[in-house]
Amino acid sequence: MKKRDFLKISGIAAGALIAGCKAAPADPSAGRVKSAVKKGGPLKLSYKPYELQLRHVFTVATNSRTTTPVVLTTLEYDGVKGYGEASMPPYLGESHESVLNFLSKVNMEQFSDPFLKEDILSYIDGVMPGNHAAKASLDIALHDLTGKLLGQPWFRLWGLNPQKAPVTSFTIGIDTADVVKEKTLEAGAFRLLKIKMGRDNDKEMIDTVRSVTDVPVFVDVNQGWKDRNYALEMANYLSERGALFIEQPMPKEQVDDIAWLTERSPLPILADEALQTVQDLLPMKGVYSGINIKLMKCGGMHAAYQMITMARQMGMKILIGCMTETSCAVSAAAQLSPLVDWADLDGNLLISNDVYEGMTVVDGKITLPDRPGIGIIGKKSENL
Amino acid sequence: MKKRDFLKISGIAAGALIAGCKAAPADPSAGRVKSAVKKGGPLKLSYKPYELQLRHVFTVATNSRTTTPVVLTTLEYDGVKGYGEASMPPYLGESHESVLNFLSKVNMEQFSDPFLKEDILSYIDGVMPGNHAAKASLDIALHDLTGKLLGQPWFRLWGLNPQKAPVTSFTIGIDTADVVKEKTLEAGAFRLLKIKMGRDNDKEMIDTVRSVTDVPVFVDVNQGWKDRNYALEMANYLSERGALFIEQPMPKEQVDDIAWLTERSPLPILADEALQTVQDLLPMKGVYSGINIKLMKCGGMHAAYQMITMARQMGMKILIGCMTETSCAVSAAAQLSPLVDWADLDGNLLISNDVYEGMTVVDGKITLPDRPGIGIIGKKSENL
Repeated sequence: MKKRDFLKISGIAAGALIAGCKAAPADPSAGRVKSAVKKGGPLKLSYKPYELQLRHVFTVATNSRTTTPVVLTTLEYDGVKGYGEASMPPYLGESHESVLNFLSKVNMEQFSDPFLKEDILSYIDGVMPGNHAAKASLDIALHDLTGKLLGQPWFRLWGLNPQKAPVTSFTIGIDTADVVKEKTLEAGAFRLLKIKMGRDNDKEMIDTVRSVTDVPVFVDVNQGWKDRNYALEMANYLSERGALFIEQPMPKEQVDDIAWLTERSPLPILADEALQTVQDLLPMKGVYSGINIKLMKCGGMHAAYQMITMARQMGMKILIGCMTETSCAVSAAAQLSPLVDWADLDGNLLISNDVYEGMTVVDGKITLPDRPGIGIIGKKSENL
Repeated sequence: MKKRDFLKISGIAAGALIAGCKAAPADPSAGRVKSAVKKGGPLKLSYKPYELQLRHVFTVATNSRTTTPVVLTTLEYDGVKGYGEASMPPYLGESHESVLNFLSKVNMEQFSDPFLKEDILSYIDGVMPGNHAAKASLDIALHDLTGKLLGQPWFRLWGLNPQKAPVTSFTIGIDTADVVKEKTLEAGAFRLLKIKMGRDNDKEMIDTVRSVTDVPVFVDVNQGWKDRNYALEMANYLSERGALFIEQPMPKEQVDDIAWLTERSPLPILADEALQTVQDLLPMKGVYSGINIKLMKCGGMHAAYQMITMARQMGMKILIGCMTETSCAVSAAAQLSPLVDWADLDGNLLISNDVYEGMTVVDGKITLPDRPGIGIIGKKSENL
C-alpha cells in the first residue's frame, strides 16, 4: 500500500476507529518516527463479541459450519489503542461465553507499563488454565499497543526481513469434484493450495485439483486417517503428485502410528491438533517432522515466537496457520511469517464481514504493511 | 542514575565517545522519546584491540593470568553508534589475531538497514565457523545500535521487568586460606559468591568462606574433578554448607559420569565448558540440570535470548555469566538478566581499565540503567 492510500484510509474510512492512536505510521523513508514510552495510567481493556460470516460452508473431516464466533479486544494506554482478537472454532472448546468469562476475570488495570510483557503475559496465563484464544486476544492487543507506542511493526522489532514472508495457501474444503474444480480455479491468484482430506474421496480430491492446476499443494487430513498403512499409501500417492507435506494425518492419540509414518513418509508430517502451545513442543521430536503454529492454539505472538525458536533448533519444519479470523489475528501471525517455511494465513479471506485491513496477499505472497504494531487499520468504524 | 547525572557524564566525560549518538536517553517519566528508523547509508564497522588489566592474578583450575585481550567494536548508522566487544580468555581459543582476522573478512557495508537482524546475524555466522567472541562483538554492537535508534533499552524491547534482575555473584579464586578470607571480606557488598574449586583444597575453600560469611554461594569447578564418587561426595558436602549449585564439576567429555552425578546430586549441576551455543542445548537434557550462558560462548544477545527460551522449556536452571570484560559486554548480558535464575556478571569489576560504564551492582543486585541499547556510556574518551 502506498503511503497516500494509507493516509486516505486511516483518515477517512477508519477515522473513528483509530482516533486515539498517536503513533505515526512506520515509514523508514520518512526518517525518524515518534514513539511513546510514558509511565502512568493503567492499561484499559475493552472487548465485544462478534460473529464472523463465512463466504462458503466450511467442511473439514469432522464438521461443517457457516459462522465463527470471535471476540474483539482493545487495550488502551496513554491514548493509544492496541487491538486483539480471539477466534473460537467449535472443535477447540472455547466460545463467546468462555472468552467473555475469562476476560471478565482479567484485571489489566493493575499494570501501568505495557512494556512489562513477561509480567503481564505471565499474569494472564495464570488467571485460568487453557483459554488459549482468550489469552491470544490479550497478547495480540498488547503487541499491537507496544508496537504502536514504539512506532514500529513487530516484524522490525523482531529483526525480520518482510521480503522473506512466504507465499500463503488458500484452502480447498472437502466437496464434490465439480465444486473442488470450481474453487481451485477461483484460487488462481494463490501459489500454494491446502487440500482438506480425511473423508472418503482423498484420491479424488488431489486428482481433481491436479486436473486443473500444477501449483504446489499440501494436505490437511485433520486426523481423518485411522490406518497407518493407508496413510503411508496416501503419502506416497501425494508425493508423486507434487504435494509438499501432510498435516495431522491421523488421530493425535495414535502417537506410535504417526512416528511410524513419519519415519517412512517421503513427505514431512506436521502436527496440528496434536500440539497446542510451547509446552507441547519437545515431545513432538521423533513423532512429527514439523508443526503448525496458530496463535489461537498457543496463546499469542510471544508463545509463537518461542515455538519457532525451539522448533528450528529441533530441526522441524514450520507452518504458521490460523482459524477463520479477521485481519487482526491474521496480521498478527503474519508478523512472524518471515521466520517460517510455509504460511496458511487465509482466515480473513474466508469471511465476508472483516472489520480490519492489514496484511495483504500480493501475487500469492504475504505482504506486510509498514504500519506500527500488527499493522492493521479499521475497515468499518461502526463495528468497534 | 538520575537523568541530570547521565547528561553530565554523556556531555562532558564521554563527549567524544558518544558525539554521534542522536538517540535520546530512554526515560519513561520524560514522556515520548524520539527514535530513528531511516533507510539509507551502509552500516560502518570499526574496531580496535585492547588489553584488559586484571586487578588480581586470576587463578582457575587450569591456569593463572593478569590480562585479557579484548576487541572493541563500533557499528555506525545514520550518525548513531552502537558498541560491542569480544573478550578472549586464552582457554577458549580466540585471540586478538583471530578476532581481527574475522572482522577484516566481514562486510557490514552491504547492509543498509540495521533492523534486518536475522539476515545480518545469519550472514555473520556464515563468514567462518566458530569465532563466537568475534561474532558476539558484532551482535552486541548491532543490538546497541538498534536499541539507540528506537530510543529504548533492550530489556524493554524484550518486555522484561528490570526490577527482576537477580543478584550477581563475586568470584573468589583458588588461593590460600588467608587470601580467600581477605577476598571474601572484601566482597561484603555482594549477596552471592562464586567459589572456584578443582585443585587440591576444595573443602578448605568452602570452609574458609563459611568461616567469615553465611552469604549464599555456588561453586565453579571448571572440569577439575575427575572421579564421580568424589564429585558426589563434594556435592553433598557443599549442599550441607548452603551452596546453591555446582558449575561444570567434571570434564565435559565425561558425559555418563556427569549424568550419573546430576541424577544423584542434591544440588543442580550446570554446564559451562560443555556448552557453547544454542545448537548444543538439546543434548544437555538428562546430563545437566542447568546451563551457564555467556555471550562470548554463544555468539551474542540474540543467541542468548534463544537459549534462555529453550532452556526454560527444558526445565533447566539458568545462570548468565561473563568473561573478564568491560562494562560493554557485561551490560549487554545484564539486559537479559531478568529472565534468569542467577547472574555471574562481575567481569567488569575484575579489571582496572574499563572504558565504559553501564549496569551497576546496587546492594548486590544488577541494576539496569534506563538508557537505550545496552545502556552504556563512555568512561574515557581517549580509549576509543
